[in-house]
Amino acid sequence: MTYGIIATWAMALEGVSDAAKNLANNGTIADNIEAAIKNIEDFPFYKSVGYGGLPNEEMIVELDAGFMNGDNLDIGAVAGIQDFANPVSIARALSTERLNNVLVAEGAAKYAQKKGFERKNMLTDRAMIHYKNRFKENSQTIQPDIVPYRGHDTVGVVGLDRAGSIVSATSTSGLFMKRAGRVGDSPIAGGGFYADSEVGAASATGLGEDLMKGCISYEIVRLMRDGLSPQEACEQAVNALETQLIKRKGTVGDLSVVAIDKNGDYGCATTIANFSFVVATDKIEPTVFIANRVAGKTNHEQANKAWLENYIQTRTAPLIEK
Amino acid sequence: MTYGIIATWAMALEGVSDAAKNLANNGTIADNIEAAIKNIEDFPFYKSVGYGGLPNEEMIVELDAGFMNGDNLDIGAVAGIQDFANPVSIARALSTERLNNVLVAEGAAKYAQKKGFERKNMLTDRAMIHYKNRFKENSQTIQPDIVPYRGHDTVGVVGLDRAGSIVSATSTSGLFMKRAGRVGDSPIAGGGFYADSEVGAASATGLGEDLMKGCISYEIVRLMRDGLSPQEACEQAVNALETQLIKRKGTVGDLSVVAIDKNGDYGCATTIANFSFVVATDKIEPTVFIANRVAGKTNHEQANKAWLENYIQTRTAPLIEK
Repeated sequence: MTYGIIATWAMALEGVSDAAKNLANNGTIADNIEAAIKNIEDFPFYKSVGYGGLPNEEMIVELDAGFMNGDNLDIGAVAGIQDFANPVSIARALSTERLNNVLVAEGAAKYAQKKGFERKNMLTDRAMIHYKNRFKENSQTIQPDIVPYRGHDTVGVVGLDRAGSIVSATSTSGLFMKRAGRVGDSPIAGGGFYADSEVGAASATGLGEDLMKGCISYEIVRLMRDGLSPQEACEQAVNALETQLIKRKGTVGDLSVVAIDKNGDYGCATTIANFSFVVATDKIEPTVFIANRVAGKTNHEQANKAWLENYIQTRTAPLIEK
Repeated sequence: MTYGIIATWAMALEGVSDAAKNLANNGTIADNIEAAIKNIEDFPFYKSVGYGGLPNEEMIVELDAGFMNGDNLDIGAVAGIQDFANPVSIARALSTERLNNVLVAEGAAKYAQKKGFERKNMLTDRAMIHYKNRFKENSQTIQPDIVPYRGHDTVGVVGLDRAGSIVSATSTSGLFMKRAGRVGDSPIAGGGFYADSEVGAASATGLGEDLMKGCISYEIVRLMRDGLSPQEACEQAVNALETQLIKRKGTVGDLSVVAIDKNGDYGCATTIANFSFVVATDKIEPTVFIANRVAGKTNHEQANKAWLENYIQTRTAPLIEK
């Protein structure tokens, strides 16, 4: 049987590479997506996921994660949780509960505490410098509120194992300088993630406030059920939501999605330039691709060595307080 | 132009009646859905919405609400908010923000505080008696955790005004004896509510953990876009989700939905016996209907006077601590 895994952003390369080895040896997709996301959560230089994630406007790191088991449609999610190392693992544990599968803020922390998940101060010195620098920049402009940064490096991973199980999961620290308690699409079933082992799975990254308006991950899986390929489904869902939001509101935030179907075929669509994603299947070695939209279609080009080196270098470069 | 409003549960009769008068006089659907839900939030005897809502396992009332403007697809929601009188109004205010539209727990309270929304201790003496009685019952059985009550009287209201605007909104105190921080489908876009003024709107009540697995409100609006009537869309979405969950998990919680389309036609489907809902349109006086499913179709029968009297009587009857 085939297997496959696809993840948003080049930061997922290491986790996806490890997952691919295990999936080849009949590892489960649930275990390997959790592990791939933990790898990113634990890496201090990725500033929008887990440890090292950028804080909210009060300089508190608040984390969101979602997990969906496509076999039984079970969902688990946490939103606005503080000071736990691996939100994705808490979301996965919640997906196995009979009820109370989505927990927020202090309630989520109480659950995680009782279940013995690792406590960790998730605010790094580096994230604090980012915060202080941004605070200074904002204070030099005339604005009533701190302006959130519109970056969107949420990790979303979808995949299929040799047994035919499909999972979708996400983890993020959300918008930099978000309001306390702000939740985007990442922990919202159908918004940031959706999985159905009879069809496929999808995950989204971008401006959560806009992605959730289209229930975009649910819509992509639905389009695949109707017979579209993952690539067609991703493009149709992204283009339709973008068109609607421009028509209704005049503006739209960044929208990027990845998907996989039960045959191990994958897709990716984006509205931004140079959106990176990682794929590994039984036919494709772990590879970073760069996506760009041309005339409504999203082209995928393999990232070269220079691009990858620059990606890591810009993320790990020394950061100086202004 | 036509107008119409449909709401879950007979408790919405008074609010829907007031709304219908205003809608006839060109009131906006946003104003009138907010007012109809506030009416229910303020009434102390409805034990699953607003003031008088039943508390979580720690005897804290945590409230969820969602609001979607079908004109521009703007969404606002709060989850796990404590001690504010009208969560639906906070959700509506959030829907007008540029970003940070969904706020949870203390972050939601901070926003509401800054915006001047009314503070209120939402735990009534009556809710406290319900809690104490349930706690005693639970302690007499062998259970590791407090067992949540599976009632589901979330208010969801959808409607259309003479100007053609469509809104969907919800408010709930969630599962009685839920874990602290638990969030159901009510504040989740596409789960508990969805609206698109070019098509229609839907809202759901029932076991939130299961409703969100199907993105059921989004799915109903999508089916209406594909040409189904509100009634057909409600039945198809409810029956399909029920079938999937029984097939995948062996069990399914209560699922009930209401919908309206841009012509003012409405629909309702349910998996439970005697699900009540309220309708008012330019052709129908405010009326409580009782829905029952027969052979996959949901029949709607007008509630008679005895049924309505019993509905109020059972909800306002004296409650004695056991």
